[in-house]
Amino acid sequence: MFTPVKSTKVYEHVINQIQEMVMDERLKKGDKLPPERELAELLGVSRTSIREALRALQVMGLIESKQGEGNFIRSNFDDTLFQPLSVIFKLQESKPEEILELRKMLEIETAALAAHKITDQEIEELKFIMNQLKECEDEDRKVRLDKEFHYKIADISKNSLIVNILSVISSLMDFFIKDARKIILSNEKNKEILIEHHEDIFNALSKKNATEASICMAKHMEFIYINCIN
Amino acid sequence: MFTPVKSTKVYEHVINQIQEMVMDERLKKGDKLPPERELAELLGVSRTSIREALRALQVMGLIESKQGEGNFIRSNFDDTLFQPLSVIFKLQESKPEEILELRKMLEIETAALAAHKITDQEIEELKFIMNQLKECEDEDRKVRLDKEFHYKIADISKNSLIVNILSVISSLMDFFIKDARKIILSNEKNKEILIEHHEDIFNALSKKNATEASICMAKHMEFIYINCIN
Repeated sequence: MFTPVKSTKVYEHVINQIQEMVMDERLKKGDKLPPERELAELLGVSRTSIREALRALQVMGLIESKQGEGNFIRSNFDDTLFQPLSVIFKLQESKPEEILELRKMLEIETAALAAHKITDQEIEELKFIMNQLKECEDEDRKVRLDKEFHYKIADISKNSLIVNILSVISSLMDFFIKDARKIILSNEKNKEILIEHHEDIFNALSKKNATEASICMAKHMEFIYINCIN
Repeated sequence: MFTPVKSTKVYEHVINQIQEMVMDERLKKGDKLPPERELAELLGVSRTSIREALRALQVMGLIESKQGEGNFIRSNFDDTLFQPLSVIFKLQESKPEEILELRKMLEIETAALAAHKITDQEIEELKFIMNQLKECEDEDRKVRLDKEFHYKIADISKNSLIVNILSVISSLMDFFIKDARKIILSNEKNKEILIEHHEDIFNALSKKNATEASICMAKHMEFIYINCIN
């Protein structure tokens, strides 16, 4: 029997080659790519194919083009997964609850992991964010500090995949549950409860108590879920 | 002060327009896009820009081109996140342990969620996969059935984001911890333990007992973690 031959286009070959160079560690983050002309010669393809491949890699968020300087492998991937996942989310007709459900499970377990790994220096850094959050009166700044608190806990987990995934979930929340954070944070009744939640999470982490950290985070996430959905 | 103007290229505009049509639900999964010529007229840009945009969207895994039929919005996104995440993983110099750590936390919580949501029909379906896994002698088929068992639990959670994320984690495992599954599954000493684990997880789910399901899954994940890393 015959099976159809999948035609790989020239620009796809170029993309594959660049990806392979990343996998082989011949290209690292921040590295400058050779100029288009040189790439075309190296790979024996037209400059048009090189340009198509570079554009696709730019759209994917893996390389960035700096005016007059050339193309570089990106160093920051905080928003790389957002574009594909937000489109998938919409096409799958997913519901906002699914974002909160996923965030809840990840944040609970990340808090536990962070409690195991937190250093004394990081306890101070997290405390600094929490104190700013407590004293902050400006609603927009509060939203940013709240995000920063959660981002810091992901960071303390020392697992870059968790940071990537929680970062894309956070962007999905901002996009699909618009202003949810601000509405929750600016509600007078919630203000004290939320400060208390963050303090409880901080205290558990500073004691390096994983069970307590996950219980406190679960309580916080449950509260957010109920307030976002209703 | 002046801030640099970020130049948005024509093909980026085209991508943004197509993404907006997805967000507005004017384009749904499986939909056929207008021919390139028509798109160029509709958006008032050159066919070259249209082609560049479509290629980038193809590379991102959001559209697929069918020979002689045209371009379609994809319906299956199981591998869409793999390409960007695997490159990010490599560029961040992440460690294989991070994949297992993330998988562990998600699978534990997904098992609990699935226990809440499982239907009687799904209990039968999961039982069917488990029985095949128990009787299977072929190592490769066993790997596939093991994956199917875990995929089914994600499916039962009825959260498509969880399915997407677990699917990309599974691909990362296959790619960065090569043959790990096969090595674990084909070890004579492990065989009985693994069957027992899957049975315990199945039993907890069939009783719709979330706590038990997560405890059994945690035990299973811990075992896999230790066997993959050492």
